[in-house]
Amino acid sequence: MNALAWIAPGCALVGIACALYFGSWVLRQDPGNEKMQKISSHIQRGAKAFLFSEYKILIIFVLVVAVCIGLFLGSDDFPARGWVTACAFITGAILSSAAGYCGMHVATRANARTAWAAMEKISPALKIAFRSGITMGLVVASFGLMGVSLWAIFVLFAGTPQPEIINGFAMGASSVALFARVGGGIYTKAADVGADLVGKVEAGIPEDDPRNPAVIADNVGDNVGDVAGMGADLYESFCGSIIAPMILGVSMFGTTLVGADATWALLTPLLIAATGIIASILGIFAVNTNDENKLHSALDKGTYVAAGIEILCVIGICWLWSSQSSNVQALWLALAIVVGLIAGLGIGKFTEYFCSDNYKPVRKIAEASETGYATNIISGIGNGMLSTLAPILIVAVAIFIAYNVGMQAVGRSNVTFGIYGIALAAIGMLSTTAITVGVDAYGPVADNAGGVAEMAELPHEVRNRTDKLDSVGNTTAAIAKGFAIGSAGLTALSLFFSFKVTAEATLGIGALDLSLTNPMIVIGLFVGGMLPFLFGALTMNAVSRAANKMIIEVRRQFHEIAGLLEGTADPDPERCVQISTHAALREMIVPGLIAVIVPIIAGCISLEVLAGLLAGALVTGFLLAIYMANAGGAWDNAKKYIETGNHGGKGSDAHKAAVVGDTVGDPFKDTSGPSMNILIKLMTIVSLVFVPLFVAL
Amino acid sequence: MNALAWIAPGCALVGIACALYFGSWVLRQDPGNEKMQKISSHIQRGAKAFLFSEYKILIIFVLVVAVCIGLFLGSDDFPARGWVTACAFITGAILSSAAGYCGMHVATRANARTAWAAMEKISPALKIAFRSGITMGLVVASFGLMGVSLWAIFVLFAGTPQPEIINGFAMGASSVALFARVGGGIYTKAADVGADLVGKVEAGIPEDDPRNPAVIADNVGDNVGDVAGMGADLYESFCGSIIAPMILGVSMFGTTLVGADATWALLTPLLIAATGIIASILGIFAVNTNDENKLHSALDKGTYVAAGIEILCVIGICWLWSSQSSNVQALWLALAIVVGLIAGLGIGKFTEYFCSDNYKPVRKIAEASETGYATNIISGIGNGMLSTLAPILIVAVAIFIAYNVGMQAVGRSNVTFGIYGIALAAIGMLSTTAITVGVDAYGPVADNAGGVAEMAELPHEVRNRTDKLDSVGNTTAAIAKGFAIGSAGLTALSLFFSFKVTAEATLGIGALDLSLTNPMIVIGLFVGGMLPFLFGALTMNAVSRAANKMIIEVRRQFHEIAGLLEGTADPDPERCVQISTHAALREMIVPGLIAVIVPIIAGCISLEVLAGLLAGALVTGFLLAIYMANAGGAWDNAKKYIETGNHGGKGSDAHKAAVVGDTVGDPFKDTSGPSMNILIKLMTIVSLVFVPLFVAL
Repeated sequence: MNALAWIAPGCALVGIACALYFGSWVLRQDPGNEKMQKISSHIQRGAKAFLFSEYKILIIFVLVVAVCIGLFLGSDDFPARGWVTACAFITGAILSSAAGYCGMHVATRANARTAWAAMEKISPALKIAFRSGITMGLVVASFGLMGVSLWAIFVLFAGTPQPEIINGFAMGASSVALFARVGGGIYTKAADVGADLVGKVEAGIPEDDPRNPAVIADNVGDNVGDVAGMGADLYESFCGSIIAPMILGVSMFGTTLVGADATWALLTPLLIAATGIIASILGIFAVNTNDENKLHSALDKGTYVAAGIEILCVIGICWLWSSQSSNVQALWLALAIVVGLIAGLGIGKFTEYFCSDNYKPVRKIAEASETGYATNIISGIGNGMLSTLAPILIVAVAIFIAYNVGMQAVGRSNVTFGIYGIALAAIGMLSTTAITVGVDAYGPVADNAGGVAEMAELPHEVRNRTDKLDSVGNTTAAIAKGFAIGSAGLTALSLFFSFKVTAEATLGIGALDLSLTNPMIVIGLFVGGMLPFLFGALTMNAVSRAANKMIIEVRRQFHEIAGLLEGTADPDPERCVQISTHAALREMIVPGLIAVIVPIIAGCISLEVLAGLLAGALVTGFLLAIYMANAGGAWDNAKKYIETGNHGGKGSDAHKAAVVGDTVGDPFKDTSGPSMNILIKLMTIVSLVFVPLFVAL
Repeated sequence: MNALAWIAPGCALVGIACALYFGSWVLRQDPGNEKMQKISSHIQRGAKAFLFSEYKILIIFVLVVAVCIGLFLGSDDFPARGWVTACAFITGAILSSAAGYCGMHVATRANARTAWAAMEKISPALKIAFRSGITMGLVVASFGLMGVSLWAIFVLFAGTPQPEIINGFAMGASSVALFARVGGGIYTKAADVGADLVGKVEAGIPEDDPRNPAVIADNVGDNVGDVAGMGADLYESFCGSIIAPMILGVSMFGTTLVGADATWALLTPLLIAATGIIASILGIFAVNTNDENKLHSALDKGTYVAAGIEILCVIGICWLWSSQSSNVQALWLALAIVVGLIAGLGIGKFTEYFCSDNYKPVRKIAEASETGYATNIISGIGNGMLSTLAPILIVAVAIFIAYNVGMQAVGRSNVTFGIYGIALAAIGMLSTTAITVGVDAYGPVADNAGGVAEMAELPHEVRNRTDKLDSVGNTTAAIAKGFAIGSAGLTALSLFFSFKVTAEATLGIGALDLSLTNPMIVIGLFVGGMLPFLFGALTMNAVSRAANKMIIEVRRQFHEIAGLLEGTADPDPERCVQISTHAALREMIVPGLIAVIVPIIAGCISLEVLAGLLAGALVTGFLLAIYMANAGGAWDNAKKYIETGNHGGKGSDAHKAAVVGDTVGDPFKDTSGPSMNILIKLMTIVSLVFVPLFVAL
């Protein structure tokens, strides 16, 4: 064991301390007038109730799966392997839930405070919303790193014979993430679509109008979907990307590299993640602006500062490795990591191009809205499809470079080192997760602040200011999704490689024919490629069904509560919250189980079909994720662009068309799209964990 | 050479004779009153003008590519290989264009005749429309088989050293198909979307109203897109599926099987296709009904009769092979072929389930229209995504069975025979192409007949009758697309295998690492998977742009031509026809070139990247094709379902929402979706043809 490994939990502790500081700073701000506090407490209660209900279901799921793992995955030479894996699985799941809860606790209290701060000017409002977001970011990264590094120190570095038990941790993270993303996504969009369609379209009242009974549910949804769900998503991406190269390192390099190198192969991922947290904390202080038009570049500045510091740390870490090794020229690996980091920023920039109203694509959608609903939709779909081009090419180039420099580090002989390079690139991309999540999670807080301002009938300019923050938030949310999916593309390859290595460790090298000319692989590719479409269909239809129930309830309240539309009576938001909660919990079960059960069934049929299935799901999942997230983000911002007075402004025909596009985009960007990368990862990690079962069959 | 091979061109001649008979029968029918004849001749002129302009561009493209093939693909031991391949390429292209022209010639004359026959009752109208369709079907299948079989007889059976030159024929077919599908698809949808948005939505006049200047262009579009484009599509699928197993047979079995078996491996694909034409002709006579509600089952009956006869023929052919062979138990292969045929019918049935208004999915979309535009769109997209499940599983099972029974035929030892079994399953699926195309191509004739009836102001019940025919046509069109993409899935695998075999013949066996753990393969998978999205985006945006021009022109005419909307002045349809023609021709170039150039660039970089690229494009192309075709078909029929009086009927809010869904679905089902399978096939065949160039680099 190497003392350097303790740097990782140390940095995680620093991250947690900073999260406590920023979180308590947010909570110390003025929570606004009584009405706002009441609204905010409604949102808090709704969010808490949903999370607790969700966690109840998760506990059952986690326990059942843990018992299955414990029972089926023991082995003769290591009988407790199953139960140790089950423990890793449970800790991964618990830390994810805890991170989601903490972030949401602060976010649901930051909304009213942000709105109140926006009474004066935009800069203090940005500060509160961003610090609430960064609390989430730090908790996500620190909890993740803490869990992974302690498992690494006590199990991997201790020289366990079967290091892949740590995959259980990743599987726990992915399982919680899938349910949180899907459940949260259905919750938020059922409420959003329902509130919009009856409120804005039918009754003709503004967004977030207090008379609309679904508005509280909509605002709860922002928190459970876009804060807690998104946090769980990035948590699993972050943990997965640290674990993937470690597994590769310990299972392959342990035997082929000498002691120091094998240790460094394990250490490096931990150290990159650890320094990433510190770099993110430093980046936070670069975020500050008073200029409404420079919000995005202020946030960008934070990201760039963090990235710059992280690049220096990476070079330092690899230089240390190089200096202690006679076999590995680790500075080549630094290049792989930096390539991953830059690739992430590149994907972010292209995402911004396709989703922000400063650029042509969104403006074209806004223009197409002038010729009606259909051209808005066609234009948005075309735009979303087109936006897959750049991220794919960036990831392809990143894979190519990382693979080749990875091999270069050991003199071009070792293919596994090439794959290891790709895995390091994935961590490079996610190393600054803390600030990425922070920049993303500030969006829903701003969105909620707007809702609170509207419901509490604050002056118009408050809403205008929060709208400015929210519009930027749409773009940063799309960027964070780009990171999540981009890293999934890089990580999947190393998980996939580990899958093959693990299986062939039992079956004999070359036992699996993973060639594209093997019909079993092609069958797997087809079926796997279809799964994200099926997943998308199920989640879209779930939103439809849930939104429909919401529509009926809102219509009922408008109809039955006398004086509601006139503003003399209060709506009954609790009923709407309940509808969203129940619908989300019920509808998340089937998609979630598909992700767990399908790879197990495929693996029991044939490991080759399973391998093809994972690759197929990776490709179409990646594409659908980008397509759906960007199409949705662009539709939303095209609507906002029109609302700022272009193409006739609010109330024009173009605006009506844009509202429809936005509504279609809602489940695209917040339910179906973002769950794709978790689907891919969860299926891969389930396959990896259950390999011992498959080879035993 | 085997005398049995002459059966193929013989059956093709019979098919051509029958086409002549049915075509001239259609032309002998009463063309209706003077006004109808005038409208019909407008459509004829427009369609002819477009096809001629398109063919002019195609001639340049074909000549340039032919010269490239001739110059670059010669080899030392067979210097003329390049030029012979170029000849095959040119004949494949010419026969495709000729088939498209013939089919369209009859279809543009059948429209008025169908409308006139519908004055009385539905059965004679069905007969004319169907016989026009079947003329197209027979021409497509017969021209294709004639070309392939003559090349086979004079080149392959003659024992040429490099049989893969016949791939040039398939490449010619695919090239024309791509331009015809994309160009025709853009043409028809630009006109359709433009006519609908200004006419129906803005001016509030009915569909196909003679005052709408874009209506003629819309009707021309039905012919150039849904008749000529679709015909070229199925022509290339049909030719490709015959050629794929022949190449596999001659290049692999020639060396491993004794004389008779090698000959039979070549003969069988030809004989299956040949008997398929005869079976289709017999099936035609089963199509007849007087009951408006049994139109679909009447058409189904024709398909089933043809399939039944074909199954008997297949068993006979394989029995003959078995009886002459001591090594191959060819009745196992009969099972593979029949599995393919049944898989095709299965895909058709599921397509019908998702697209016909007799079933739940379309009715759910219609129901979702009640809550507005957005829920209609979300529901349609969800429905389309869900519809990928069954076809994928059917194709996966078909591959599994065909592969295993293929190997069984030679005692489970020969993997190539397994792939050959899959290739035969693809021909099995397409063996009854003649009647499949016939059933499909009757739809646009019925659609056009409705247009003519409306423009010629025939009584209302005529339009009602043609609408009935048209609604069934929407479903049959989706079914034919299902066949085209299903067979592409099966054929691609054998082409892919040939690609590897051909490359390794020069580079040495095992030179290519096509394993999923090779990062070059993963890069290829990502980039290839993205191409159908890019292709979809380009074609959707092309339709948007072209439709926009059309909208501006129609608005201009409504505005500038005094008395047009009052019906006292005539519109200027020629301008609209020109706009569609120019837009389609210009917009088809870039997507078309991408399909040809991208695989060549990838191949020059790395054969492994290219292999991954083809597999990636196959998977996402397959999925997008089904998703887009079925979503579009379902939206269209949901609108038709509402128009028959459900959910408030014509003019209701639900109807307005359904019209938007239909408009979004237009480029889905008629432009982007159906060009996917040609994209996949063209890229694969280009790769296969240019292998000699890649390995030389």
